[in-house]
Amino acid sequence: MITPRTPSGVLELLPQDQVAFQRMLDAIRAGYERFGFLPIETPVFERSDVLLTKTGGETERQVYFVQSTGALEKANEAAAAARQESGDGEDAAETAYPELALRFDLTVPLARYVAEHEHQLTFPFRRYQMQRVYRGERPQRGRFREFYQCDVDIIGKDQLSVRHDAECPAIIHGIFTDLAIGPFTIQINNRKLLRGFYEDLGITDSEQQAAVLREVDKLDKRGEDYLRTTLTGEGFGLSSEVVEQILTFVQVRSTGHEDALSRLTEVETGSRGSASLTEGIAELREVLTLVRAMGVPETDYRLNFSIARGLDYYTGTVYETVLDDHPEIGSICSGGRYDNLAGQYTKSRLPGVGISIGLSRLFWQLREAGLLEASTGESTVQVLVPQMSEELLDAQLALAAQLRAGGIRTETMLDGGKLGKQLRYADRAGIRFVALLGEQEAADGTVTIKDLRRQDQFTVPRAELVSALRVELAQPLV
Amino acid sequence: MITPRTPSGVLELLPQDQVAFQRMLDAIRAGYERFGFLPIETPVFERSDVLLTKTGGETERQVYFVQSTGALEKANEAAAAARQESGDGEDAAETAYPELALRFDLTVPLARYVAEHEHQLTFPFRRYQMQRVYRGERPQRGRFREFYQCDVDIIGKDQLSVRHDAECPAIIHGIFTDLAIGPFTIQINNRKLLRGFYEDLGITDSEQQAAVLREVDKLDKRGEDYLRTTLTGEGFGLSSEVVEQILTFVQVRSTGHEDALSRLTEVETGSRGSASLTEGIAELREVLTLVRAMGVPETDYRLNFSIARGLDYYTGTVYETVLDDHPEIGSICSGGRYDNLAGQYTKSRLPGVGISIGLSRLFWQLREAGLLEASTGESTVQVLVPQMSEELLDAQLALAAQLRAGGIRTETMLDGGKLGKQLRYADRAGIRFVALLGEQEAADGTVTIKDLRRQDQFTVPRAELVSALRVELAQPLV
Repeated sequence: MITPRTPSGVLELLPQDQVAFQRMLDAIRAGYERFGFLPIETPVFERSDVLLTKTGGETERQVYFVQSTGALEKANEAAAAARQESGDGEDAAETAYPELALRFDLTVPLARYVAEHEHQLTFPFRRYQMQRVYRGERPQRGRFREFYQCDVDIIGKDQLSVRHDAECPAIIHGIFTDLAIGPFTIQINNRKLLRGFYEDLGITDSEQQAAVLREVDKLDKRGEDYLRTTLTGEGFGLSSEVVEQILTFVQVRSTGHEDALSRLTEVETGSRGSASLTEGIAELREVLTLVRAMGVPETDYRLNFSIARGLDYYTGTVYETVLDDHPEIGSICSGGRYDNLAGQYTKSRLPGVGISIGLSRLFWQLREAGLLEASTGESTVQVLVPQMSEELLDAQLALAAQLRAGGIRTETMLDGGKLGKQLRYADRAGIRFVALLGEQEAADGTVTIKDLRRQDQFTVPRAELVSALRVELAQPLV
Repeated sequence: MITPRTPSGVLELLPQDQVAFQRMLDAIRAGYERFGFLPIETPVFERSDVLLTKTGGETERQVYFVQSTGALEKANEAAAAARQESGDGEDAAETAYPELALRFDLTVPLARYVAEHEHQLTFPFRRYQMQRVYRGERPQRGRFREFYQCDVDIIGKDQLSVRHDAECPAIIHGIFTDLAIGPFTIQINNRKLLRGFYEDLGITDSEQQAAVLREVDKLDKRGEDYLRTTLTGEGFGLSSEVVEQILTFVQVRSTGHEDALSRLTEVETGSRGSASLTEGIAELREVLTLVRAMGVPETDYRLNFSIARGLDYYTGTVYETVLDDHPEIGSICSGGRYDNLAGQYTKSRLPGVGISIGLSRLFWQLREAGLLEASTGESTVQVLVPQMSEELLDAQLALAAQLRAGGIRTETMLDGGKLGKQLRYADRAGIRFVALLGEQEAADGTVTIKDLRRQDQFTVPRAELVSALRVELAQPLV
């Protein structure tokens, strides 16, 4: 007998948690579709030569390769033959990569998809994609080797106006309002503004800029003094004055729409004329204005000049979203604008903007923080029809069929047992309503509905059953 | 530059097809949930030792193994070292399997899941699971290496009454009615009845029974004469009389509920007393009776004594579903009853019954047969809000926000252009409604709705916009 074990580093859920997870997936999908995005799905594996064009370093080391038994055997044989020929085990160990590899994000598959199907797509191409991705990370708490990403992107051909950058905060706002996991703030910044700011300070080399940004990123953990010492020290050699300007700048957080616009004016006024800074500010102004026009309340977004996003990938607007009451969770939805999606696959210039929600990690964090209790425990099943007696089995099945035909998710007990036990089952399973059809009800043409949450019950004529239950189901439990 | 290429043997869809595919997935999920099934999802890979306990032969040869770059390098080094030690390339080529492998169905992961979480689950455990599975098959038209399976199973602990076998046809009936891909028939048989029938004929050895069943399966392709020659010939040596009895039996198809019950009585009367046959008939009677009690119309199910299902796995009721107008597609939903789900992982006896829809293949076949045209081409996007002028941009965005807040899936044009071009875009994209907010409408506080399908338009006050559109959307296009 083999011990049944889940592979390490995956998030496998029990049914009630899976129901809560599925509700979140559904809310995200509804949020993306509400803004007119179309779904795509790509295969879990890509050709290794296609997947690994752009990467290197950490990502490549974390890729999972895939090969069928036949391919595995062939590779082993080929390697053995090569070794016998060369007589040198060390050299021969460097065999070619297998043909296929699991995707490690949804961006590279999107780039491949758009480039491959370019002539069959309409641009701007608005797609969402919610699938699992794979990274061979060392397993640790809250780090997964398999996890969901829920991405949405708008891809232009040749050009894409900055107006589209304003849609992302509006999408985020809709989804996190629906998810109801507490107040949140969408933080907005712009890479051009950042670049221009550092250029103005004389830090013009992009590698030096990146090094400074990496240090600035440690501000929350290490504090201001660490930054002062490091940035004025060897390797950076910045003046104290410049470091103070950096410290002031990265701590800017706007407190409302008008304040955000004033902050931009302030930076512009203080600028030494960097074109990049001017462009970044103009973009941010337009984005902020349209975000407000799209109906996002000004309490829910703000400028945060410290946001840079780790990837070199982003070139304009960048976003991070935080839960106001749980900043320790970090960004729950991030993204930004990029210049060219698929330069490795096509000569067409495909600028885009998008955001991503890492749902597996978010779900795990919310559960750890105790923020999911309200949503878990409630079954997808809305009504249980218990078995009252063998004689009434046919009537019971007809009742369940009536409920289902009325669009009500219904489980019926086929093995019977004591009624009390069946009610306890419904309660434990998180099924709110029980529809009782005993001898009395059968004779009267009625059904008795027990509401296990409200600990209440009422009897209705069969003909009114579905509409009565719909009314109950539509009323939120306060 | 790398050519962007999808790996061979996968079904990657363009957005409009993906919308149609997603609608089918949603209908299947709704169908499973309507009967009170809970969702589970398992990781795409399982530990190889867990996945490959039961299999062998064809399945094992088709398994995809997974390993991270690090594991791949280590395995290569270990193999090289082993070879240097043994000095024999041939022997060393037989390295152990990698640690992980992609699932090739959802049944083995279900068995592992139920055995692993046995003490946290309630039995009967009613779960559905809709995920992709992987088989390293030789690629050919309509055969995929990656495809969706949509499974539903009821798992009992120690026992599970045959009543649950009646739920499967009711579920199938609900789903294929909703999918609206044409009339279908759920064909029902029972492995015990089959076993008993052959026992009565003196074919008691299970391997011989399996060999006869394999030949009988060729009836449609090879015809009666082939069967007569083969079964009376060397290797089988059955008498002509026995072969005629087999031919008559396997061609039984009931034509209604009462006819099905009479066919069972007929077989019972002709029996030479096989206990297995008697049991199979009693089970079929109960299943048929409850299927009717669950409201499945008698035109939509029938007995078919030729159904055996290839797998040795099934032990009682078996199902296959065919499209009446497209029998060439074969079974679109199959399954059955099995005695013990997870004998390789746990000592608990876990009998179950379930069905599976192979959606990727079904979708491909329906598309090939031209049966999807009605459902494809209609976007998830319900309304397009074009850009009428730069001056009205804010009003346009507020209109889109109003529609979205009303639950209407809305795309808005941010880059503008000529109105005619924007309307043509909506039409080509399958977006039915366009909401026009020009200067006149802005002044009047109205919106003009164009229905591109009905080629109709009307103007409504802004306050009535959402309810008016909801009424339109709720009316089916005839």
